[in-house]
Amino acid sequence: MPINPDAVGHEGGEGERTWTSTDSILYALGVGAGLDELAFTTENTKDLPQRALPTMGVVLNAGGQGIFEALGGFDLAALVHGEQSITLHREIPPEGTIRGKGRIAAIYDKGSSAVVVLESETVLADTGEPLFTSSNSMFIRGEGGWGGDRGPSGSRNEAPERAPDHSVTYQTRPDQALLYRLNGDRNPLHSDPSFAALAGFDRPILHGLCTYGFTGRALLHTLCGSDPARFRSMEGRFASPVMPGEALTVEMWLEDDGECVFQTKGADGRVVIKSGRHTYET
Amino acid sequence: MPINPDAVGHEGGEGERTWTSTDSILYALGVGAGLDELAFTTENTKDLPQRALPTMGVVLNAGGQGIFEALGGFDLAALVHGEQSITLHREIPPEGTIRGKGRIAAIYDKGSSAVVVLESETVLADTGEPLFTSSNSMFIRGEGGWGGDRGPSGSRNEAPERAPDHSVTYQTRPDQALLYRLNGDRNPLHSDPSFAALAGFDRPILHGLCTYGFTGRALLHTLCGSDPARFRSMEGRFASPVMPGEALTVEMWLEDDGECVFQTKGADGRVVIKSGRHTYET
Repeated sequence: MPINPDAVGHEGGEGERTWTSTDSILYALGVGAGLDELAFTTENTKDLPQRALPTMGVVLNAGGQGIFEALGGFDLAALVHGEQSITLHREIPPEGTIRGKGRIAAIYDKGSSAVVVLESETVLADTGEPLFTSSNSMFIRGEGGWGGDRGPSGSRNEAPERAPDHSVTYQTRPDQALLYRLNGDRNPLHSDPSFAALAGFDRPILHGLCTYGFTGRALLHTLCGSDPARFRSMEGRFASPVMPGEALTVEMWLEDDGECVFQTKGADGRVVIKSGRHTYET
Repeated sequence: MPINPDAVGHEGGEGERTWTSTDSILYALGVGAGLDELAFTTENTKDLPQRALPTMGVVLNAGGQGIFEALGGFDLAALVHGEQSITLHREIPPEGTIRGKGRIAAIYDKGSSAVVVLESETVLADTGEPLFTSSNSMFIRGEGGWGGDRGPSGSRNEAPERAPDHSVTYQTRPDQALLYRLNGDRNPLHSDPSFAALAGFDRPILHGLCTYGFTGRALLHTLCGSDPARFRSMEGRFASPVMPGEALTVEMWLEDDGECVFQTKGADGRVVIKSGRHTYET
């Protein structure tokens, strides 16, 4: 059964999600925070109240139940994470409860594949105040060709020709994905060598959202003075798989008014997150 | 108020503890298991059913409530973990529920300090079958001198003069304690530099039970063919603090019938766990 292009606008169920201080620490450790980031990796360090990394929003899923069903049947193995954005309306607390609601914002026909864009709004459960808005696009191979809208084309947030204003390199660990997956995505593509081989990889690959989290840390510490309250938004497109153990280099080009374009490169210099844009309070 | 030597025999309350597959993974990662130990670090790897590391028993505390109160008041900061043993009656499942009961087995007067020995029995909650017996001794500085029994003296399980039959070295990470502490022991001695400084350390020290877990992995993989069902018991005495980031070397001397004496050394060759004995099914 092919994908259903008429599912655009479908809203998933509203959901609730509670997370703990330990969840926030686990996320921070999973995206490489360590001894130099005790505000994110501990809850009881003197004079350092615990805070959550801004990108943790992308793993705090609430709501969206039934979205996949509305799309009709397709092979989940054909799904690849395309783009991910998050806009923070306030700082994510280190523990709390949120309510979220997702919807299918767009479905594009790329010919040989389909692109599905999901958007979700998340609020603090106790006050109803907006916490963050997130969006992700999924690339589904083999599901295009119904003659639908191709969607926006051309690149955006292109990396300038000039040298980056900032460049930060973080080392991932060979077993990075074993820890990161405890945040929720237990797809064996990231841990089981035999499963990864079936998918055509020499070994399990790192979660795209783990690379996203490392990248967010680089932006936070370089441009926001390590203050999550100044982190406004981040968007980027996954361009290449990352192998656990690779060094990741985040290159940033400053624009006016608390905006920057960024990209993330793997150990061999290939771009692994492209078309990145980060906004922040200056 | 000094320690109460008459508390010997006091039984703490019976308690229950449930742990999940994720808890078992987190423990395994916390004591350094990684890509080569997917049976312990993942739950969905093909042909590798998840198993728990045998030493996880030492963090699965159930019962023992009220034990400290029975001892009377003393300064918790003066408490140092002395010895730890665990005897497994069957393999610890990767998830489950246990019931446990602890008691004060002995209190010794070492003159300038007291030694309190706690013992606990743990059973599987659903069947009541014995799971493990554990014992730990706590050294409490400044609490001796009431003229009580000094307890057993002399060393046991002494490392032979000859070269060890096996020697295994594992590297700990500089941020090892940040992950290990998620198993439950959030003492800031292991994470907060300012707290560690107050205790007289240059930086936060590794949990003794983390070193114990690394050591247990070395015994498991070297002597039990990586099969937790063959791991019978392990005991040892904490001899020196370990700094996160140190390499740990476990030296083993085989004896007859599935017994070995072991010790664990730090990066500089000093002994950090001494008087070790491990029994296993050959």
